[in-house]
Amino acid sequence: MNLILLEPHETTVSGHVLMSGPRADHLRRVLKVVPGSTVRLGIINGPFGIGTVAAVTSTEISLQCAFDADTPEPPMVDLLLALPRPKVLKRLWPQLAALGVGRITLTNAARVERNYFDTHVFEPDVYRPLLIEGLQQARDTRLPVVSVHRQLKVFLEDELAPGLDVDRVYADPRCDRDIADALSSRPGGRALLAVGAEGGWTDYERQMLQAHAFTAVTMGPRTLRSDTACVALLTLAHAALSRRV
Amino acid sequence: MNLILLEPHETTVSGHVLMSGPRADHLRRVLKVVPGSTVRLGIINGPFGIGTVAAVTSTEISLQCAFDADTPEPPMVDLLLALPRPKVLKRLWPQLAALGVGRITLTNAARVERNYFDTHVFEPDVYRPLLIEGLQQARDTRLPVVSVHRQLKVFLEDELAPGLDVDRVYADPRCDRDIADALSSRPGGRALLAVGAEGGWTDYERQMLQAHAFTAVTMGPRTLRSDTACVALLTLAHAALSRRV
Repeated sequence: MNLILLEPHETTVSGHVLMSGPRADHLRRVLKVVPGSTVRLGIINGPFGIGTVAAVTSTEISLQCAFDADTPEPPMVDLLLALPRPKVLKRLWPQLAALGVGRITLTNAARVERNYFDTHVFEPDVYRPLLIEGLQQARDTRLPVVSVHRQLKVFLEDELAPGLDVDRVYADPRCDRDIADALSSRPGGRALLAVGAEGGWTDYERQMLQAHAFTAVTMGPRTLRSDTACVALLTLAHAALSRRV
Repeated sequence: MNLILLEPHETTVSGHVLMSGPRADHLRRVLKVVPGSTVRLGIINGPFGIGTVAAVTSTEISLQCAFDADTPEPPMVDLLLALPRPKVLKRLWPQLAALGVGRITLTNAARVERNYFDTHVFEPDVYRPLLIEGLQQARDTRLPVVSVHRQLKVFLEDELAPGLDVDRVYADPRCDRDIADALSSRPGGRALLAVGAEGGWTDYERQMLQAHAFTAVTMGPRTLRSDTACVALLTLAHAALSRRV
């Protein structure tokens, strides 16, 4: 943990916070805090802050906290992801939050196995702690907003906000366009990245994506597993956006 | 599997190959081959080829194979990686091979836990099948060359080949140099990427790296877990090198 995140209800007007459980264990055992130590904090979807350790017991740590006035902006990149295998998705949650994603939209697709929808891995009780783990790793407070859609067509046609300042891309091995070119047209705008299932999008799905303003970009000639592809495409998008600013 | 890899000893001068086990299962159940079907093949560290199915039984598949004259070049990127947690390394092997790495050098470092060296995860029996899995995913035949070094200092001083055409970089969150700048000076040359343990390289290690011609590059302001950092840095390096060519 490079940042300790607090739930909004854990903070008080006076700035006093009492911490127990895994976060207190981490402070005591890894960071070896003593009264007077300071630790980096953040409020989920809120500002960063600094906590000064007031007291340490075997189960609890008492902190006096001061928070910044401003809340960081959400990441500039959103992800439309064909539901991966449950095991893969479980591994992905913290990595997606760490890399920085504003919105994670999970969708069905032709090559998604039907039984992937029978799991708990996209229920908030499962993914929220994993997203928080990733935010604490990467020092961010902005929790990705997650939604699940059973029909890609319905999502694209009815639920995807028009978003004139959003550049939409999907990776296609048959294309050689650099993502930096696809994202460079609107400085300050957001990016929406579509990543297919194992086996990729079908021709029909690619046509639908193109009809909804998604353009194909390259991730090189190698076919990547869907989790590796997510990390790779997010990395390229963030690098392209940060070069642009 | 997007490619079926064969061990060199499995091929014969006549081009006849008899396949059993998981690869035969994959051909039968996933690709649903029948006599006359063609499948993409490769020989490990050898050329690509095409196999024509001659016969299918419940346990074996007989193929008549023809291979290209040329063997693909190894990837242009090598990795120097502080030994990650065994669980993390196990997940990384196929991803590294899929992304494309010529040489994977695992090293000790100040922030590597000593007991990480007590595991089997960097023994060939464990990692070789995982690397092959990654190659079959990404359609490559070039198996990364793996070595393990107990002392970073000894490796850098005595074992790292001078390599005038190799650009050496490590990721440093305090730096804002784009990897494309660090790799752009020698078209056609290789890149060697150094990725630290959880918690990063120590100051002393960074000085050692710099003394051996490694330059710092940025991966953005977010602190990534070592496996995510590997995937991200490899992606950026490959993108920079492919833009250069």
